[in-house]
Amino acid sequence: MLHIQTFQERIQEEISRLKFTQEPKELYKPIEYILSLGGKRIRPTLVLLGCELFGGNIEKALQPALGIEVFHNFTLLHDDIMDNAPLRRSKPTVHEKWNNNIAILSGDTMCVMAYQMMMQVDAVHLRKVLDIFNDTAIKVCEGQQLDMNFEKRNNVSIAEYMHMIELKTAVLLACSLKIGALISNASEEEAQHLYEFGKNIGLSFQLQDDILDVYGNPDIFGKQVGGDIVSNKKTFLLLKAFELANQYTKEELGNWMHATTFVPEEKVQAVTQIYDFLGIKTLAQKEMDKYFESGLAHLTKIHPTNNKVTEGKEQLKAFAESLMARKI
Amino acid sequence: MLHIQTFQERIQEEISRLKFTQEPKELYKPIEYILSLGGKRIRPTLVLLGCELFGGNIEKALQPALGIEVFHNFTLLHDDIMDNAPLRRSKPTVHEKWNNNIAILSGDTMCVMAYQMMMQVDAVHLRKVLDIFNDTAIKVCEGQQLDMNFEKRNNVSIAEYMHMIELKTAVLLACSLKIGALISNASEEEAQHLYEFGKNIGLSFQLQDDILDVYGNPDIFGKQVGGDIVSNKKTFLLLKAFELANQYTKEELGNWMHATTFVPEEKVQAVTQIYDFLGIKTLAQKEMDKYFESGLAHLTKIHPTNNKVTEGKEQLKAFAESLMARKI
Repeated sequence: MLHIQTFQERIQEEISRLKFTQEPKELYKPIEYILSLGGKRIRPTLVLLGCELFGGNIEKALQPALGIEVFHNFTLLHDDIMDNAPLRRSKPTVHEKWNNNIAILSGDTMCVMAYQMMMQVDAVHLRKVLDIFNDTAIKVCEGQQLDMNFEKRNNVSIAEYMHMIELKTAVLLACSLKIGALISNASEEEAQHLYEFGKNIGLSFQLQDDILDVYGNPDIFGKQVGGDIVSNKKTFLLLKAFELANQYTKEELGNWMHATTFVPEEKVQAVTQIYDFLGIKTLAQKEMDKYFESGLAHLTKIHPTNNKVTEGKEQLKAFAESLMARKI
Repeated sequence: MLHIQTFQERIQEEISRLKFTQEPKELYKPIEYILSLGGKRIRPTLVLLGCELFGGNIEKALQPALGIEVFHNFTLLHDDIMDNAPLRRSKPTVHEKWNNNIAILSGDTMCVMAYQMMMQVDAVHLRKVLDIFNDTAIKVCEGQQLDMNFEKRNNVSIAEYMHMIELKTAVLLACSLKIGALISNASEEEAQHLYEFGKNIGLSFQLQDDILDVYGNPDIFGKQVGGDIVSNKKTFLLLKAFELANQYTKEELGNWMHATTFVPEEKVQAVTQIYDFLGIKTLAQKEMDKYFESGLAHLTKIHPTNNKVTEGKEQLKAFAESLMARKI
């Protein structure tokens, strides 16, 4: 885990070194603010790990890694407006601290800055890096739109849900690894296996998030248990429950979803009981494990040419496991 | 003017050929909609004119030209949310026809699509084209922020105003021409002269807009006369009036600006009388002409190497004149 920590610290250091002293300050202060809120810096760390796996120079991967983080924070900033979220990492969101207009425009500026950073790669890699970045950025927007659509639909299938979280969450993790590989002169095939590794780990990670919302230890998970249940969020658990429930249980679930006045704790308890009755937790964990194993299988397709690659694969596996190690 | 019309028609044809059949349709329909609202397609036409000036292949300039137009429409889409504008080209704005969230996200998607189109240039030009595009995109965001800031300030100087319209409006026209020149293998120096030509014409054009708002023929200008006066927009005319007015006239202007209940026609008439008294129209026209001439001077710095360049310069001059030919 040594490299991972070193990488995370290095990313953190580079981010805190970014200067946003330009005018107009109303545009740049919110950018500095959202980037200062912290987080595990998973995506830029993946860029560096992808680069290291193929023996590349980490220094050359730093700017594109920052570009990925700036892009990710741009999407968080705009998502928070759309979701009307008051808090991000326990601090006021940008649109709360300033206003919607400033949040829209600071976000737009971050999107362009992400491209500026992403472009700081050798000429030979420029087009390939930007192609996968563009492709991913479009997918992330599509995923957010699908997520908003699903809020208003009552017939979302599990396949549709998995497609949505692939677009909204998984592909950016995949893209991070692939960009690291590309600037490290990996072959297209190897870079693609790394992409698939990241995508599957991402899906597994999101399923874990769904499970933790209901079955997690709130002290470790850092969120109130049952938030998804209270807000009727169409998670894997809820969709699976509707798939497996008999008519009577479906109606009970439906009644809780349509209830306009209820005691939140009671709703969480009742829906959790239905999940327990249907064995949803185990099914979700199986699905989570399936994607995790699929991810690891792609890692085995990358053949070590030297000890460094073997070590890099261990690092990646360790990082994936650390992401999945939150207590259920 | 033959080429200009041909170019505008060709751009229009290419835009109407763009397909937005992808899912989710909630994301892509608004993009199709805003691009279908028309307009003079000034910026993409400038890309083609810049390309033709240096004997480049127009076909190779089409995609970056579309990229500029998509980027421009992305900024209009987000600006309309920020300005709470109900109409764009006499049609409902995207946030009115759909909602704010869809307008934010469709705009974000358009920004990425603009990059995808912009990247369709030969490898040798890729970095230079994207560098000037990024630089310009950031400036456009800064310009919009300054514009919003100025609404709340009472001490905006004319220099600050000119800086704002340079960022918000002029540099994208300049960038369009420069990108056309770059993909046509113009030297950095020549491309920069074309940039300065575009920037100065853009400033001149915006000043004309300020003048037309007060002194234009509404049948030709297409907007209600005095809209800027009614909304207290800090235009060149208003700022110049405050600069030149004596204490008494300043107070009169100030009273009209602070008035919360008034008959719009009376306010327009009263403020126009102050402008007339101070000779603002002539001063604004002089300033407008100054920038126009500065623009043309940069055009003369580009030395014709063959008849094509001479003809291209005439085309550009004619296009600039056509932009400035709206009746005052």
